[in-house]
Amino acid sequence: MAKITASIITIGDELLIGQVVDTNSAWMAQELNKIGVWVQYRIAVGDVKNDIISALDEESKRSHIILITGGLGPTADDITKPLLCEYFGGKMIVDEGALKNVKNIFENIIKRPMIESNLKQAEVPDVCNVIQNTRGTAPGMWFEKDGKIFVSMPGVPHEMQGMMTNYVLQHLQQSFIMPHILHKTLLVAGIGESFMAEMIKDWENVLPANMKLAYLPNYGGLLRLRLTATGDDKNETETELNKQFDQLKKLVSEYLVVGEDIQLEAHIGKLLQQKNKTLATAESCTGGYIAHLITSVAGSSKYFLGSIVSYANEVKENILSVDENTISQHGAVSEETVKQMAQGILQKIKSDYAIAVSGIMGPDGGTAEKPVGTVWIAVGDHQKIETKKMHFRFDRRRNIELTAMNALNLLRMFIVNNN
Amino acid sequence: MAKITASIITIGDELLIGQVVDTNSAWMAQELNKIGVWVQYRIAVGDVKNDIISALDEESKRSHIILITGGLGPTADDITKPLLCEYFGGKMIVDEGALKNVKNIFENIIKRPMIESNLKQAEVPDVCNVIQNTRGTAPGMWFEKDGKIFVSMPGVPHEMQGMMTNYVLQHLQQSFIMPHILHKTLLVAGIGESFMAEMIKDWENVLPANMKLAYLPNYGGLLRLRLTATGDDKNETETELNKQFDQLKKLVSEYLVVGEDIQLEAHIGKLLQQKNKTLATAESCTGGYIAHLITSVAGSSKYFLGSIVSYANEVKENILSVDENTISQHGAVSEETVKQMAQGILQKIKSDYAIAVSGIMGPDGGTAEKPVGTVWIAVGDHQKIETKKMHFRFDRRRNIELTAMNALNLLRMFIVNNN
Repeated sequence: MAKITASIITIGDELLIGQVVDTNSAWMAQELNKIGVWVQYRIAVGDVKNDIISALDEESKRSHIILITGGLGPTADDITKPLLCEYFGGKMIVDEGALKNVKNIFENIIKRPMIESNLKQAEVPDVCNVIQNTRGTAPGMWFEKDGKIFVSMPGVPHEMQGMMTNYVLQHLQQSFIMPHILHKTLLVAGIGESFMAEMIKDWENVLPANMKLAYLPNYGGLLRLRLTATGDDKNETETELNKQFDQLKKLVSEYLVVGEDIQLEAHIGKLLQQKNKTLATAESCTGGYIAHLITSVAGSSKYFLGSIVSYANEVKENILSVDENTISQHGAVSEETVKQMAQGILQKIKSDYAIAVSGIMGPDGGTAEKPVGTVWIAVGDHQKIETKKMHFRFDRRRNIELTAMNALNLLRMFIVNNN
Repeated sequence: MAKITASIITIGDELLIGQVVDTNSAWMAQELNKIGVWVQYRIAVGDVKNDIISALDEESKRSHIILITGGLGPTADDITKPLLCEYFGGKMIVDEGALKNVKNIFENIIKRPMIESNLKQAEVPDVCNVIQNTRGTAPGMWFEKDGKIFVSMPGVPHEMQGMMTNYVLQHLQQSFIMPHILHKTLLVAGIGESFMAEMIKDWENVLPANMKLAYLPNYGGLLRLRLTATGDDKNETETELNKQFDQLKKLVSEYLVVGEDIQLEAHIGKLLQQKNKTLATAESCTGGYIAHLITSVAGSSKYFLGSIVSYANEVKENILSVDENTISQHGAVSEETVKQMAQGILQKIKSDYAIAVSGIMGPDGGTAEKPVGTVWIAVGDHQKIETKKMHFRFDRRRNIELTAMNALNLLRMFIVNNN
């Protein structure tokens, strides 16, 4: 069976000058993969007519499916819609469904009279199938030409996602006979990419031709291993993949965090729910980022009670009951302080487990004795607190992320080892 | 003067199956723009030989500069280095500088003996200039062919950033005579893209040919307007740009947040420092995300004291002193509760200003009376607390971000209006 391939074209100067990070492509690629479409090329071009046309020409030679996002706004810098109309040889007409949608949004949600450019949102080329936008004003457009499918959608992520979910994915499935692309991913900690590769090379070298292993290093010493299998028969491919994946899991068991593609914070949530235990955090240098990661998981209110972000020393003393002598003698970034922060949060919030962190994230605030990147982490429960000192480097954002991931992983090990 | 153009090629299957969001391209584009290089094309390809070669061929026809990231790791799925060696007609040799660097990292940082694949990291094609990696083991490579420059760098963001900052940008500046590309950006709130366009169309329609306005809608009702000017003479271009930008600022003054390209959280930090005031937050539904945004700004410890993330009602009652009758009568998501949370945080942390939020982020937890997306926000000081109810829709992540941005904007308006 031929591989069904897709190219993603994202349009907008904001992507090229770096003002916006493209999160759409990753989301689209994931969804396409699930239905068996292989994304082979991703292209970002500016709001420049010739560049867009050249991308359409090139990608339609390369792929079966060309998905286009962006450039559909009501303002003058968005040139995509008239360009597509010309490219596919159509003329602009008003789509009644899109018009009704725009009117409804202005009457009932925005509650302001429409202007000329809003009405223009309802115009589409007469050579496309219109994809109604249930989350915004700009309709999507489905074109077919020389056996290739072109879909144009807005660049606003939740609008694009709505169209993909409600319309595009199922219509693509109806348009092609797809091979099955299946992935299984596991998470390991405490081992680098090259050592892992060395450890499993005998297994990796004899993988069947339809399978491929990828190493995805992550922040905080975490490494994901993703095994991919392609095949025409879903059950057969799945059975083969599971067999190889089980072998891989055994080979890496010493470093295995979990045998699924899950964020560490979600995995910890599952562990806590299994044990019917609760968690709270006391954060200085991470400024609430650990609590944010934990609460980004739906349902986290079942096990997460809260956090005290003690950025100022007075908050450490007055709310977390850290001894002011401890801070004056050992400093806010010290084993003693972070231990008392953990004890303080356990007492104040009455959770079963606690994480506490204090460090110097940079770029300023470092000293010779405690340079930027120095972090103390404490994890524990009402019986025992464990601490660890870490040294990171580089920039503030990365230090915050590294501190959070390491703290979560230390808590995970504490939970697993203190059963 | 000819525009100097660049293409960015990112390599790695993980980008195409959507497991990783490409943040490198945005960062690189920003830095290239600052030195006057226009990024016209961005391409992501998998670890597939023919696709990489075809991208190199196509982009070298299109652009003066081709920047490549990814595919340089020590594992079997990284095929870029031997491929580049073949493409540029070289043979692999050991680079002494790179070897010294790999050895140093293993001896002094990783503290484990090296294996074969680590040593391979020090091999480079003999037809490139080696860019030493001060933050990792894989060296960068600078190739020149037919007047075009190709630079290959690792995909790990901070390693790539180190090479760009320490080597690539200055060597590119020495290789070309660059035109100047200047941007000025302002932030507005409370007006949609199309209404803004209507409001300023007379001005926008007569902009000089070397200037371009872009509309960049953002979460939380914020809109950025970016004015770009290109020219050979820096001073002249800057003067023209400033003149037009000042006109734009006047036109949008009613909705203007700030006349610079700054995140809202950084702008609030500046406001607080100007007034010598402090801030604390009491967060339920945002789970620490507002505190995280504020503390992601370097130097925020000067004005941010801390946060109480009161995910559980007991934390609202016991630490923020919210009356338990208030919660049982009005609910945790109510004007009364959020007001008491704000008062509680002002008393507990003794900050000058407070933000408090409570809402239902989804996907679960909604009721007929308070559906998912219902949020109460309070902002204020020791004299006055203002509240606002908001209704969001869609997914959990977006609701958290929308709540945070709206809360920050309400605080900004409170600070500005209560001088």
